[in-house]
Amino acid sequence: MKLATLRVDGGTRAVRLDADTLVDLGCSDLGVLFAQDDWATTAAKATGATWPADGADLAPVVPNPSKVICVGHNYTNHIKEMGRELPSYPTLFPKFADSLIGPNDPIVKPGETEAFDWEVELVVVIGTPVRRATEEQAADAIAGFTVMNDISVRDWQFRTIEWTQGKIWDSSTPVGPYVVTPDEVGGVRPALEVETLVDGEIMQRDDTGTLLFDPVRLVQYVSTVIRLNPGDMIATGTPAGVGHARDPKVYLVGGETVVTRIAGLGACTNQVVKAS
Amino acid sequence: MKLATLRVDGGTRAVRLDADTLVDLGCSDLGVLFAQDDWATTAAKATGATWPADGADLAPVVPNPSKVICVGHNYTNHIKEMGRELPSYPTLFPKFADSLIGPNDPIVKPGETEAFDWEVELVVVIGTPVRRATEEQAADAIAGFTVMNDISVRDWQFRTIEWTQGKIWDSSTPVGPYVVTPDEVGGVRPALEVETLVDGEIMQRDDTGTLLFDPVRLVQYVSTVIRLNPGDMIATGTPAGVGHARDPKVYLVGGETVVTRIAGLGACTNQVVKAS
Repeated sequence: MKLATLRVDGGTRAVRLDADTLVDLGCSDLGVLFAQDDWATTAAKATGATWPADGADLAPVVPNPSKVICVGHNYTNHIKEMGRELPSYPTLFPKFADSLIGPNDPIVKPGETEAFDWEVELVVVIGTPVRRATEEQAADAIAGFTVMNDISVRDWQFRTIEWTQGKIWDSSTPVGPYVVTPDEVGGVRPALEVETLVDGEIMQRDDTGTLLFDPVRLVQYVSTVIRLNPGDMIATGTPAGVGHARDPKVYLVGGETVVTRIAGLGACTNQVVKAS
Repeated sequence: MKLATLRVDGGTRAVRLDADTLVDLGCSDLGVLFAQDDWATTAAKATGATWPADGADLAPVVPNPSKVICVGHNYTNHIKEMGRELPSYPTLFPKFADSLIGPNDPIVKPGETEAFDWEVELVVVIGTPVRRATEEQAADAIAGFTVMNDISVRDWQFRTIEWTQGKIWDSSTPVGPYVVTPDEVGGVRPALEVETLVDGEIMQRDDTGTLLFDPVRLVQYVSTVIRLNPGDMIATGTPAGVGHARDPKVYLVGGETVVTRIAGLGACTNQVVKAS
């Protein structure tokens, strides 16, 4: 299944994509859906109102997750471009719900940065509460996968030794368009082409099958530290090709179209606009 | 006013402390209270049900904040003990709502760490939504102050270059007992004695008036990056004397009583217990 959260009538609705139609699932968003024990059955059987998928105004797949955990240094090529050793442990940093935007919303470049960068990421979306998950529990807790552009404000990211302030900017981070269940992408450790295009030029391209810490391992690791709730997200890291690591560096200044996409999951397509 | 969130009858209630009595404020917790435009008037005038303050079972002052932003390197003495230069910018890192516990709840030492440490902190609690706050807006957005013990899992904190995984452990972090409004502590830049005692021995002692980045400046800084919502918290950093910086290092192993307290705000008093 491909599931999404649709903006409609001043609110949102959880929907399922059937060919070119979005079908209402009877609740307001995917976070509410995933909090139901039998969400997969509910989602599969729903026969509610419909909307055309073409031109749909999609919200972040889960608009209000209790936590978004991001992983750094997880593709070998990106680790090398940043000049680092292969790590023994995943590097974790946060985003908050207020950082998220829909998959086709404009990305507003804040006036406070001159180092505004892209990072395509495969995102694990949690469908079952877990803490200290075994491998099997971790696999079962994965509702599906989606795409994030982990927009990074590099000048603020590197102001101090902690990246947080460069990663959590308000309404900066596209996520979507769909949560695609594991059965549609070859399971819980999918090997999918992942790429970023800026104005049509390929800036990042890799394969999610090359992740050092795979989705199941990440659910186990993070859930050792803190419970994962339905709708929580783990962004699994970005491959080589970010603007900050280029020579010369390339940053988003406004006016660009950025596409972050993963084969089988779809794309976030966003206009970068300057703050007014 | 001194405000708290009381556990009662399987739920919680927002309350005001009047001498030795807790007075119901008509809503379930302080996060719900602060989301009301006129919360200060509501809180001052409430005449609801009462409970004795002595022995009250208090929840985290705000049980479900949308974000908790913590500041590192903010007391001169602690910066020096960690061997660092005085910073130009505050260092930010996260906690999540699931990390919080009540001010008198036991602190469960996870089996996964042998480097479990204390950090007393003055916490700013937000009472008004703000983004890119001016100095005046930032001051007005401060509902009050409380105490946090920013429990830190040092071995995980230093596994990678990002502290997050050492700072967000589930149900690790006492916060409370009260949100005390600025008028009771000399305003929005209070100068209060802050200290940690472990089994009665003073381990940290400093004055919140010596913060490099004061509460108003921190609200301005964080709100430049991301909106602050009612109930959100900014933990303003810890003074010298953490266990990790001692020679030899001292960690919590289970069985200790840890008191983190700030003059005028009260104390978190927590038993450290080993995970069963």
